[in-house]
Order: sequence, then C-alpha cells, then structure tokens
Amino acid sequence: MNQSHPLAPLLSPRSVAIFGASNDPGRISGRPLRYYKEAGYQGALYPINPNRAVVQGIPAYPDLDSVPGPVEFALIAVAAPQALAALEAAVRKGVRAAVMFTAGFAETGAEGRALQQRIAAMAREGGVRLCGPNCLGLFNLRLGHTPTFGSYLEAGPEQPGPLGMVTQSGAFGTHLLALARRRGTGVGIWISTGNEADVQVADGISFLADDRETQAIACYMEAIKDRDRFVAAVERARNNGKPVIAIKVGGSAVGAAAAVSHTASLAGSDQIYDAAFRQWGVERARTPEDLIEIAYACTRGRLPRSRRLAVMTISGGAGVLMADAAERFGVDLAPLSPAAQAEVTRWVPFAAARNPVDLTATPINEPALIDKAFDLLLGREGFPSIVAYLLALAESPTLGETVYELIAAAARRYPDRYIALSVIARDEIRRRYEAAGAAVFEDPWRAVEAMAAAMRCAERLAAPPAAPLPVPDALPPLPSRRIGEYEAKRILAAAGIAAVAERLATSPREAEAAAAALGAERLALKIVSPDIAHKTEIGGVLLDVPQSEAAAAYDRLVAAVGARAPQAHIDGALISPMLGEGIETILGVQHDPVWGPVVLFGLGGVFVEVLRDVTFRVAPFGIEEARRMIGEIRGAALLQGARGRPPGDVDALAEALSRLSVFAAAQAGRFASIEINPLLVRPEGLGVAALDALILPATAAPL
Amino acid sequence: MNQSHPLAPLLSPRSVAIFGASNDPGRISGRPLRYYKEAGYQGALYPINPNRAVVQGIPAYPDLDSVPGPVEFALIAVAAPQALAALEAAVRKGVRAAVMFTAGFAETGAEGRALQQRIAAMAREGGVRLCGPNCLGLFNLRLGHTPTFGSYLEAGPEQPGPLGMVTQSGAFGTHLLALARRRGTGVGIWISTGNEADVQVADGISFLADDRETQAIACYMEAIKDRDRFVAAVERARNNGKPVIAIKVGGSAVGAAAAVSHTASLAGSDQIYDAAFRQWGVERARTPEDLIEIAYACTRGRLPRSRRLAVMTISGGAGVLMADAAERFGVDLAPLSPAAQAEVTRWVPFAAARNPVDLTATPINEPALIDKAFDLLLGREGFPSIVAYLLALAESPTLGETVYELIAAAARRYPDRYIALSVIARDEIRRRYEAAGAAVFEDPWRAVEAMAAAMRCAERLAAPPAAPLPVPDALPPLPSRRIGEYEAKRILAAAGIAAVAERLATSPREAEAAAAALGAERLALKIVSPDIAHKTEIGGVLLDVPQSEAAAAYDRLVAAVGARAPQAHIDGALISPMLGEGIETILGVQHDPVWGPVVLFGLGGVFVEVLRDVTFRVAPFGIEEARRMIGEIRGAALLQGARGRPPGDVDALAEALSRLSVFAAAQAGRFASIEINPLLVRPEGLGVAALDALILPATAAPL
Repeated sequence: MNQSHPLAPLLSPRSVAIFGASNDPGRISGRPLRYYKEAGYQGALYPINPNRAVVQGIPAYPDLDSVPGPVEFALIAVAAPQALAALEAAVRKGVRAAVMFTAGFAETGAEGRALQQRIAAMAREGGVRLCGPNCLGLFNLRLGHTPTFGSYLEAGPEQPGPLGMVTQSGAFGTHLLALARRRGTGVGIWISTGNEADVQVADGISFLADDRETQAIACYMEAIKDRDRFVAAVERARNNGKPVIAIKVGGSAVGAAAAVSHTASLAGSDQIYDAAFRQWGVERARTPEDLIEIAYACTRGRLPRSRRLAVMTISGGAGVLMADAAERFGVDLAPLSPAAQAEVTRWVPFAAARNPVDLTATPINEPALIDKAFDLLLGREGFPSIVAYLLALAESPTLGETVYELIAAAARRYPDRYIALSVIARDEIRRRYEAAGAAVFEDPWRAVEAMAAAMRCAERLAAPPAAPLPVPDALPPLPSRRIGEYEAKRILAAAGIAAVAERLATSPREAEAAAAALGAERLALKIVSPDIAHKTEIGGVLLDVPQSEAAAAYDRLVAAVGARAPQAHIDGALISPMLGEGIETILGVQHDPVWGPVVLFGLGGVFVEVLRDVTFRVAPFGIEEARRMIGEIRGAALLQGARGRPPGDVDALAEALSRLSVFAAAQAGRFASIEINPLLVRPEGLGVAALDALILPATAAPL
Repeated sequence: MNQSHPLAPLLSPRSVAIFGASNDPGRISGRPLRYYKEAGYQGALYPINPNRAVVQGIPAYPDLDSVPGPVEFALIAVAAPQALAALEAAVRKGVRAAVMFTAGFAETGAEGRALQQRIAAMAREGGVRLCGPNCLGLFNLRLGHTPTFGSYLEAGPEQPGPLGMVTQSGAFGTHLLALARRRGTGVGIWISTGNEADVQVADGISFLADDRETQAIACYMEAIKDRDRFVAAVERARNNGKPVIAIKVGGSAVGAAAAVSHTASLAGSDQIYDAAFRQWGVERARTPEDLIEIAYACTRGRLPRSRRLAVMTISGGAGVLMADAAERFGVDLAPLSPAAQAEVTRWVPFAAARNPVDLTATPINEPALIDKAFDLLLGREGFPSIVAYLLALAESPTLGETVYELIAAAARRYPDRYIALSVIARDEIRRRYEAAGAAVFEDPWRAVEAMAAAMRCAERLAAPPAAPLPVPDALPPLPSRRIGEYEAKRILAAAGIAAVAERLATSPREAEAAAAALGAERLALKIVSPDIAHKTEIGGVLLDVPQSEAAAAYDRLVAAVGARAPQAHIDGALISPMLGEGIETILGVQHDPVWGPVVLFGLGGVFVEVLRDVTFRVAPFGIEEARRMIGEIRGAALLQGARGRPPGDVDALAEALSRLSVFAAAQAGRFASIEINPLLVRPEGLGVAALDALILPATAAPL
C-alpha cells in the first residue's frame, strides 16, 4: 500500500474513529464497525458513542477528544446537525481524512450547498481530506478498511481482487459491485465520492493508479468537476500501466441557445466527453455490463499484445459469429500460414483452417487436438492471443477434466499470451480455468468484444505520451471588441494558420491596385463589415472575377450589400485570388464548461450541415492527435483522394488543427468562439488556406 | 398441439421408432430414449435394436417391419451406411417424418452431397418429412417428444416454456438453450435443422407460428435456402401475433468481382439480409446474449403497447443511464403531466418528477411510495409500460417482502401493462416476480434496450400487411442484347419511372431540330454509344449548352469522344433540357442469390461514393416501404429541404422506387443489373426524372 499518496490517510489509515457507531450491526451506523471486524482490520479502531462503553465488543469513547492515541481517519455517520461538530472535533484531533455519509447538503438546494461549502472549507483549512458528504463510503479490502454501509459486504468480507472502482453514485456503485462479484472479477478498493465536497473521482483514480495490486480502474461518473485533476489522474494511471474504463452518463445540451456559428450548435457535451476520453486514453463503456466485461478482460494479469487474434472453435457457427465480431471491433484474425493450414487439414479433413480454425466436433473424440492447436497457434504461428470456443466441453462429465488439464498446461507453456475461452460452465469450473490463467466468457461475441477493448487499452498504454506543444513566443493579442474577418484571419495567421493572400480595398481604385498586386487572373471579392455575419446570403461575395474587372466588381458588391443591408457599416472589400481546387473543411473552437477550449473539425457542405459529421478534441493537442481526429470523421476518405480527386494536404491540415488548439488554449477565456469556415485543404504539398474566419470575443454579444 | 400442420408428424407424433436405440442411457444413441421416458412421452415408443429384446426397460424390435402398430415418426441414430436402409424401412412402414442425426453427408464434400441428394429424394418420394441429416434433433417438451442427444436435457426434463427455437447449428443451438435456461425463459419446442436436406429453419418457424403456447420464435441461421418459404413462415408468425427474432451470422462478399455499376459494388449480402429482415418484420439480434434478452422480453405474456415508457428509480444515476438508453433506442420517455409532477414533488421534495421519476432513496423508509408511483404512472398518466429500478431492494431481508407484495398487487391491478424491473436479485426472487407478471432485468441499460426491441416487435405485429402491388399490364420487353442509355430510359419510363424529355440526334442538323423541339433555353448533350459506360470521363457530356449552339456542340462532342475513344461506335447524341435544381439520387437493382432482385437507394455524390450511405429492399415492395427506405439513409434530411433548399418530391421518389421494384421483380432473371444514376429528385410537386440509366441484360458481359 502506497503510504505517500495524498489519499493514503483516507484509504489506508493506521487508526480509525467511527462517529455514531451503533451497537446494532444491522443498522447503517452499525454496519461499518461490523465490516471492520469481519474484514480483520489491524489498525486501531475507536467507536465514538456517548451512550455505551463498549460497542460491538470494542471499547468505545464518548467523544473524539477522549481517544488516547492519534487518529488518522474518521468516519462521520451522524445526521447533518451533528456532522459539523464531528468534523470540527476531527480537525481538533489532527485527523487527516474523513468519510461523511451524511445527506442533506448540496443535493437538497441552495441552503444545503452553502452548508457543504462550509464543511469543505473547514476540512481544507483543517488539513482533512473529505470523502462525501452524501456518499456510501469506501473500502480497501487489502487492509480490512471498510468505512461503508453498502450492502456488498453484508454477506461477509470478499477476497480483495485486482479491480479498483470509483463511483460518484453510491447506489449505482453498489450495483456495479454486485455485477463484478457475479462476473468473478473481485474489487480490492472501492470509493464512492457522493457530493464531492473535496475528494473527486479523479482522486480515487490517482490513488488506484499507484496501488500495486490494482490491475484496472473502473469508474462511474455523472460529471467531471475539475478537468486538470482528472487528466493528471488518468495520465498517472497510464504511466503506471493501468487501463481506466469509465461510464459517463447524461448528455445535456450545450448551454448557448442562440449560436451564431456552426461550431457551437454542432457540439453536445456528451460528444466532447467522448472526445476527451479518447484523447486521454480512457476506455468508455456504454452500459454497466460492458464496464464489467471490459474490467474483467483487463484484470487477467496481462493484456493482449496486439490486435492479432487466433480463433479456435468446435462449432462452425461460433467461428463465423466471432469473425463477424472481429470485423466489427477491428480485431485482426490474421490467416494462418499455408503450412499451418495444411497441418490443420491433416488433423481434421473438413476443418476450416484459415482463422477461425474450426476443428469441428473432432476434439470430442480426440481432445489432444486442442493441445496441438494451442501449440500450433501460440507456438509456431506466434499469435499473442487466442479465443477458444468449447461449448459445454468444460462441463462434460467424461471430458471436462482432460480439457482442463490440456488448457492449464497450455497456459503454463505460454504465460505471456492472452488465452480466452468461450464456454458454458458452472461458476466453480470457470474459477478453476481463471486460476489457471485463462479468461472465461460465455458468449463468443462478447468474448471478442471484450478482448477488443482490452487490445485498445493495451495500445494506449504502449503509446508514448504526446509531446508537449510549443506555444509561439509572440501570440497575437485578441481584442475585446468585435473583429472582422480580415483581422480574424490576420490574428490566426500570426498563430500559424495560413490564410489566403488578400488585400483590403476601400475604393474601386484600391480594388484595382490590389488585384494587380495579387497578380492572379481570377479573384474573389468579399464585403468587409462588422455588422454582417453571413456575407453570402446578402450578396456580399463575388467569385471568379477577372482581374481586369476588379474595380467594377467592387462597385457592384458595395451596391448590392447597400441595397440589402442599408444599416450595415461597410469598411471595404477583401480581394483575394481564386485558389482553385481543394476540399472545404470547418475548424472551430468553443468553450466547454468542463473541458475549456474544444476544437471541432469537419468537412464542409453536406458533411457538416446534413450529416453533422464532426469530431472534437480538447485544446491544446499535437499533430498526431490532430491526425487521429481527421481520421475519425466518416467523410475522411474524401481527404485521401476519393472520387478521382488528388489527395488533400492532410499534413498541413493536421498542423493547422494543432496550431489552432495551441492558440485557443493560450487565449482561453478571451473569446466566445472561433470558426474558420472554410479552411480550404489544397492538394498535397500546397497547404491549407483559411478563406473566412470569425472570432467572437468573450464579451461581444452574438450577431 | 396443431395436428394439421405439415410438420405435425415431426413435432407431435403419436408413435415413435428409434433406430439404433442403445441400452446405455449415457450414449448418444441411448440418450433420446432416456429423455422420452423422463419427459413422460404418452405415445407408442418402439426401440429398434436387433441385439436386445428390451432396451432401457422398453420392449424392442429387431427391425421396423416387426413393429406391430403404425409408426408416425422415426429417429435415425445410426451411422451413414445403415442410415439409408433405415430410411428405406421407414418409407416402407409408412412413417411420415424422421430425424436423422447421422453425419457424413453434404458437410463432407461432393460425394456426401450426392448421398444427401439421394436421401432427400427418397424421403420426398416416400412422403417422409426429414429433419437433418447431421443435426442434433429436436424436442417438443409439451408432449415429451425428445428425439435429440443434446446435453440440454441431461439434467432431467425442463418445464416447457413459451419460447420456440429453430437453429441450423446444433452446437450453437445447445449454447442458446443454455443461455435461455439461465435467463429463465423456458423453451418449449426446439428444432435443429443441420444440413436441411428437407426441413429448413423456415419450416420450424411455420410450425411454431401455429403453436398456441409459443409466444415468440428465436432463430439461428447461417443461410436461407428458400426465400419464399422463409417469407411465408415469418408472415404466418406475424399473422399469428408472434415476434420472430433471429441471429444471422456471416456476410460473404458479393459474387460479382468486376462490377460495372455502383449498385453491385455497394452491396454486401449481409446488408441485404438486414434489409430483408426489416422488410418482413424479423427482429435481428447481433449476439446470442441479445437474442436471448429480446426473446425474454417477448415472452412475458404481453408486449409493450407503444414506445411510451415511464421510468421510475431510486437512484438518479440509473435514471440518467436509462434516459440515455431510451434516446439511443428510440423509446419515448414522455414527460408526466404538470399535475403529476407536482404530486411527485409533494411526496419527495428533491425528486426528479419529469420522467425518469427519481424517488431517491425515500422508498427505503416509505415503501408505499412505490405503490403510489405505479398508480400515478400506469393509472392516471396511462403509461402502457414502466421500468422500475430498485437496485437490491428485492433482496433486502427487511423490505424485500413488502416490495414484492406492492409490485405483485400493481401487476394484478394493471394486467395489460408491461411492467419491468431492473433489480439485483437471486434467481428464486427473480422467478417470483416473473410469476407475478413482471419482466426482471439486472442491467438498467439492458432493460431499456430489450424493451425497445419488444416495442419494435409489437409495432410490426400491429402494422397491417403491405398491400399487394399491381404489376403493369404491358411491361416493356427487355432485350437480351446490350442496350444503350436512351433505350434503357424508354423501357424504364414504360415501367412508370419518369425520364427527362430527350431526343436522339445523329447529326448536327438533327441536334438543332431536337433543340428547337424541346424548346428549352439551355441543353445537355450526351454521347450515345454501346461501347462507352462512363461518358463523363471521356468528354462525352456537355452541359448548359445554349439552344442556338446545339449543332456546333454536337460536332464538338463527337470530335472529343472520337479523339479519346477512337474504337467506339457512335450512334449519335441525346439532347435534353437542363432541368434546374434537384437532388441527385441513385436507384439500382442487382440480383442476390438468396433474395432475387434487390433494389438499392442512395443519394448521389459523396453520399454514395465516400460514405456508402445506401439502403436496400427486396423487390417488389410498395410505396410505404419505399418511404421507410428513403428515411433510412443518413443523408435523408437533404431530401426534406436541408441547407435552405426546397424539399424534394419524396412522393414521386417513393413511387419511382416502388415501380422500379415491381419492374425488377417481373423481369427477374432477364437482367444482370439496372442502375438509374442519377435520378433527379426535383422540388416538391415537380416529380423526378431519370437523367441516365443502364440496364445490363443477364447474358451481356460487363463493359
């Protein structure tokens, strides 16, 4: 147990006081003491109870001050009016951490919120780490530390397992514990954080990241309160080789009601959680069952080394189903070598030998085939992982023991491989295979699905952490007044995002001069006005204008806009060359209440407007992350040169995305939204060019 | 038991002979007799065994001819060499149905296939319905009819349940039986069809459709051999009010390697199975777990009457999770009336009252709230379905009984409603709730997912069968030679699919005359040549040509094509008016080896080429089905008028799709593929127009 972690006093204290400890071991206030006794806690235990000298057989104290020795941890299991006094006493006594079950705080409204702020301040100033209030407590079964009244321990202490669990909801966390127990992946340390006055889910992840015996961390979250704490915690887990798997429920609509840009209206906070989890390598589970299955797959003492998987079956149907699942979840059923395929068909003439390897029902008469197949697949063919579908063979009265011996021996011969079985087997048989080192699934589809998740987790743990991003020395300032397209592009260009070459003209003559200076044969003219957001719709854009007609076009443009928007103040027109072919994309930044500046990317046209085919990343991020982002949209093939067009300059696009993210992170709080629409991605080698841009300062009202 | 169904002799015979019946009740050939005895079969049982006078206590006969009375059913559990003789004897005896376990037929190669054809013919000619060979048999537990050696019955006879099951794979079917037993949805009748020499999955569905006690039918399929039999069977199930839920594994690539049209390359046979299942109302399950969960949800004695669902919880987190699931699966959590919401907050001040109704932990102190909530939601608010999340309350030593009484009473008060619980409970507790009429799920997400599937099933059962489609009297003939665009469009126009007005010109002068006759200001010219499939790519299309330049444009077009495709025979050019705005779509037909002519629909451009955003239906189908089809593509919003454009004429599009399907069905076998690309969908009221079309006759080689 790591005693140097800031949460050590909470999760592995040497002495424990229980406020309100009841002599009745069935009552909420009596259960924790009972659990401590049953779990064999070795530290000092001090029941605090003014009415009894002995509580559940243990000497009690009328108050905390009367406890003779030091007290590292206090459990506060009293009603709200007494809870504050208890916390005060804890501070006085030098207690370093506390769990508070008590309800009646922030969850009840404004008054409760104020009360919660009081206890949070009291704890902070008194140097007490506080878990709760309004929580079900926690347990660390490795030490028998059980300050919880949850029903999980009612049937007696469980064996501490390799799974760590952190949950905001106590009720839901109890549900997850029940699922994990039934699935046979034991939980060693469990933390319910309740109202999170101080300790958050992130803190629990951080502690579990350091716990040597924890192999994976499962979380249930309703909201993340402190992004930086969360990011630091999951990075710690990654550095320590522990997958983090999380359910995040809910998905409330984005705050801004009347959004001037696409960016804001395209995001839902749930999509941003999705993006952030991907970005920091958190495996997101959709359902409680999924969470527990993935946690099970990640607590087998090893992870699959790559996506390559051998499938062995005694039923063709199961093989086809697993092949379907492999395709769906991106698992690589690499075919066996021709020599190995020939060997399989020598064993079983009608076998499928490619992968899946279907031995048909032959192993029922000749179980040694299972052994030979393991040697062929894990040995000579070098598969890092295998899933074997054995139907009910493991339960067979005649063959069960033989099959067990063969598989246990194979697991001993290949201790670094991931061996999974899809079998129907009673719990005690399943446990025996697990003890031998195999992962046991019932459903073959589920087996592949869970292994795919474990493969993703392993890939993330193996991926080097992203390089830190240099923030340019002289980032352009962001004025607090409303700024136009021209200035927006100049600011973004200074941040490293190339814009189309352009000149501002305020008269026909200047337009003519600008056209000559740009030297392009065909030009685009766009009206410049702080009062106009959507230029095209009011005739504020002229395209494909010959150089010789620049002056006349300027007059036409100003007249057209003047007719349709007579109140608009017109600053002039932007003259730029027509850039020729390219793919229009949209880059945006908006401010998420949890994650801060978030960058959006999508393809222009129908992709964004009809399909909402966009993806997000939390700023800042590097070029590799930007590449992953680009690859996530459904229309990504278009950038690779689909439809007979040349491939786009994806390098330049990724760089622009990364630079935008760096700029946005550096300017966080000083803008409401940024949108580059379109950013033209030109053919490979020709770079990108922002054709239009909009920056709304934080203080400006939407147009 | 329905004795008039053609499969009655197979599934509910009055007399049974067992070839190769062994005295050893543990052997494959001994198990069926043992199962018959244990299951209490009431008909006549005749073991056939030349070596014993009595088998497992029952008088045996040396051969079938020696059996005194009539024999309706025979089980053939002998090796391949003896199996033919047994079948011959069965025919001689007047047996009407048989199960053949025997392996060594079509699954072993060409020789086995020939042997299988022999037994199939023998059975057909002898009037014997044959299940197998190479199958695990079947059982009908309602009659104790158990001609199977599967391990499911090894632990003794199961109670016959409301689920019917048909499976091609015996091994996989055994797996499904084990899952169903564990889930507590009993199987009454189970059929494994093996090699399907005669009896197919469809026949099993048909029998189960007529079985009064079967509430739902679960299937496992690897391939459908006879489309018409399958369609007739699932329609029979629908007419009899029984949901059909199926796993179909596999998804082999489409046959045609070098496909000239998009249509062929866009389809995978798995997508077509998907479409066909949707079309005939089969609920497709992806995984064995899903199959069993949906089957469980559909065998509760009733189905949810609509998508409206009330969610009640004692944990906020579970409520949010279920709301997420409801959105994902299209379940309608309609908000409570304001009066009802006010009532809920009178009961529990901090409750969520909208829907989900989160009563917080208050019912733990005040269980009667559960009762009040059921009355409010099912009674006054009239929800047809409810799911209540009660965590571990059902297992609580103190509250469990009270909670059970309240819910059982509610189920009695609302016998027509669908009541589901999401609870953690031991099997015996779960069974008790089920007996009271509630569906019990552990995982709250899973509860909503399975109920959504049951809702879909209920909707399909309630939907009237599609009206038959009139086939036009004088469908145009389809020549067997290769035909060009012009003729293809004329043929399709005769089938009711409007084409753009156009004229064929074979000289500049004819082009001029055609332009004048069409009377349009701007024209399109397209080369006509039987040797050119992709006109645009070799300069064979001119757009937006002014009427006055028609003759010159003709010359330009012919010259351009001549330069790039000198060998092509040129028939002339098609002249048509430019039609103005519209949305380009693709309609295609290809021939699927299982389903016959299949119609494809997608939007043109990036939707098809980059996103492969297409959908399918088996021909023929009506306009309503075409509408559903149109609504399935991701880009459907474009047709509704997204991006500020007028809505397209979806009525005309749906009609064109339906007409194309009727034409394709009538011409099945006479074409290799049909493609209309693009079909321009013009603004509402203006109809559609085929701008280009390609029909490949069945005999023509691809271009």
